Amino acid sequence: MNLPLSPDRLWDRLMAMARIGATPEGGNNRPALSALDGQARQLLADWGREIGLTLSVDRLGNMALRAEGRDPSRPPVLIGSHLDTQPTGGKFDGPYGVLAGLEILHALHESGMRTEAPIILVNWTSEEGCRFSPSMIGAAGAMGVLEEATVLAAPAMDDGQPYGEALGAWAGQADPALLRDAAAYFEAHIEQGPVLEAEGYDLGIVTGGFATERALVTVTGETSHAGTTPMEMRRDGVLAACEMISAGEAILHRIAPEGRMTVCRFMADPGADGVVPGGARFAFEYRHPSNAVLARLLAEADAAMAAIARRRQVAVRREPYWSFPAVVFDEALAARLRDAAARLGARHRDILSGAGHDAYHAASRMPAVMLFIPCHGGVSHHPTESISREWSEKGLRVLADAVIATANAGLAPG
Amino acid sequence: MNLPLSPDRLWDRLMAMARIGATPEGGNNRPALSALDGQARQLLADWGREIGLTLSVDRLGNMALRAEGRDPSRPPVLIGSHLDTQPTGGKFDGPYGVLAGLEILHALHESGMRTEAPIILVNWTSEEGCRFSPSMIGAAGAMGVLEEATVLAAPAMDDGQPYGEALGAWAGQADPALLRDAAAYFEAHIEQGPVLEAEGYDLGIVTGGFATERALVTVTGETSHAGTTPMEMRRDGVLAACEMISAGEAILHRIAPEGRMTVCRFMADPGADGVVPGGARFAFEYRHPSNAVLARLLAEADAAMAAIARRRQVAVRREPYWSFPAVVFDEALAARLRDAAARLGARHRDILSGAGHDAYHAASRMPAVMLFIPCHGGVSHHPTESISREWSEKGLRVLADAVIATANAGLAPG
Repeated sequence: MNLPLSPDRLWDRLMAMARIGATPEGGNNRPALSALDGQARQLLADWGREIGLTLSVDRLGNMALRAEGRDPSRPPVLIGSHLDTQPTGGKFDGPYGVLAGLEILHALHESGMRTEAPIILVNWTSEEGCRFSPSMIGAAGAMGVLEEATVLAAPAMDDGQPYGEALGAWAGQADPALLRDAAAYFEAHIEQGPVLEAEGYDLGIVTGGFATERALVTVTGETSHAGTTPMEMRRDGVLAACEMISAGEAILHRIAPEGRMTVCRFMADPGADGVVPGGARFAFEYRHPSNAVLARLLAEADAAMAAIARRRQVAVRREPYWSFPAVVFDEALAARLRDAAARLGARHRDILSGAGHDAYHAASRMPAVMLFIPCHGGVSHHPTESISREWSEKGLRVLADAVIATANAGLAPG
Repeated sequence: MNLPLSPDRLWDRLMAMARIGATPEGGNNRPALSALDGQARQLLADWGREIGLTLSVDRLGNMALRAEGRDPSRPPVLIGSHLDTQPTGGKFDGPYGVLAGLEILHALHESGMRTEAPIILVNWTSEEGCRFSPSMIGAAGAMGVLEEATVLAAPAMDDGQPYGEALGAWAGQADPALLRDAAAYFEAHIEQGPVLEAEGYDLGIVTGGFATERALVTVTGETSHAGTTPMEMRRDGVLAACEMISAGEAILHRIAPEGRMTVCRFMADPGADGVVPGGARFAFEYRHPSNAVLARLLAEADAAMAAIARRRQVAVRREPYWSFPAVVFDEALAARLRDAAARLGARHRDILSGAGHDAYHAASRMPAVMLFIPCHGGVSHHPTESISREWSEKGLRVLADAVIATANAGLAPG
């Protein structure tokens, strides 16, 4: 199949989409279900109509643009991603996956070719968790990870308006659960990390995602006077916390250096000049591809923190507030991406996703896979987020190859 | 000399003073030069008038209540402390020293005794730094550590009113510099630390104060995505800061465990979930009785932080914002307090002051010394700050003994 894919048209559409909610810094601020998000949705709907796609919007606002298959009764192949952005977002996190999918359907339309199974391009509502929590809430609702009513009631962080009201004209009639009945799910996305570029790869075949546990650790000692309290009589929460964090880092390096540890927040309590801080609170997060290794890391960290707390006569409590099990993508779909990359001469490696993606929820219902293209310096969620046109094109061609192969799977080679 | 000191009257006056600005939590909130501070000053002035003391208020509002000596030409002996409190202050931080001094002058008055040199009780304006910065600003102005005009222009942190205006009716005519021409300075104060009580002492003979340097340390690495950035590609400000702080603690324990280290504040930058913090800022403070040892501690800490920063590919900058050299009190006056304590059977030890006191500025102009009484649990700047009546009495008797001996010094015993 030799599709007339247009990498230039994809690039032009990325730039056109990026004008909606463009920021002076060169990025995009297009919050989920804002007026700007509405403009982006309308633009996508218009582009879809021009190439004969059938738009269906479900009750959670997820947009499905369907290219009919030769056999409409076959379960469709989904290509999904999102058009909403972070407040300090760039041009590519989300739109690349949607618009690469659109370009595949555009090329199919132009060529007059039709796949055996239908292909549905999905724009998930509210992937970024910055306006409605949690992240990937629209996909979670459609895949049954969250109740539909829960999603509709989620309040916007800026004005408190519930998701269901914020949908406005984008509240459709379709049952979101219909998207569960698909044959496969593909999602192309920028890596949002530095690995592919640093190692000289064009593409990453995403075989799964890290298990993550982020917890709030509270250390409770005793506040005292910084001038008058001898060291041996202190129960300093901050010094204890620093030792705990360094211990957690050492555990990661010893057991699983391929994992990740982040302390994204740290507060001294009371945090006043001249006062020995009796308390400290910090966010403590491990990520690892294996649920079992993550559990072992956490058990060792808990033991180390408890020992430090005993020695320093403080109390410590670790309360997880954001946890994900590991995600394993479909090996057959990954193999199809690898084959396509090899055929098209794209340098590729297998990679794990560190960030969350709509594909994680899709993977709970159907064979799913992701394809990463590099982004410069690993920068994302930032106005300077950028990709090369070469990466964009390679991702498009490999995605098209694998999607079409999947939508035609089961047929004798033609 | 057998003075009719009344520990009960001192206690009753402490309780009476504590009714001015009493808080529901049992503490005192009597900000410097507030209306409540004015009431406290008036009460002191009234008590002084009843026993024939001559009140003089200087241009900085410092109150001097003079008990004439047999030889009015002799330089006076000063007893000082302060009546203002922290917003979450207790009943004793400050008032104990003023009212113990008042009780000595009351007993002298009742007995008809008169010392050779005059004794002047001083209530310094604005010792606590919470309304006007810096702490001990009234004493600093009187002793010439700060210019008088600088003190008068200092803006109140709550309403911005300059110190000079806030004085109102408490702006006196006396030259504050007159208080520099004194023979000696005594100040009794609660310890504000846990040492004396924990070790079973009644009193601490304060031989000096710690040198202190508090700095803001800024660590600058690179913000990145907590999910997608491998550990070896991170430049994490918080993990670097934790290692630096632990290194600073180890240096203190190795070189000078009698010193103190406090990290009273710690901020992750940007401090957002899912983001590797590219930066961290923390307050880093060492205190030590010796200026030379403090300098060595800081040099070693700077070297350790620089090495950690190099290894982790982050930048580090330490900017001092609060520094005091060590204070050494007068050994002859300390010996007088020790002698008195021994004579009166008070268990005592030498101790260094970790907190700042008006006596630090007095010590720049005259022989000065301080006497600490314990406070329960070392708690201060807190509504539950408390002392025992026994400690209060022992402090009063030892202070009286040493003050009167000093005011009579140079005479043949008799």
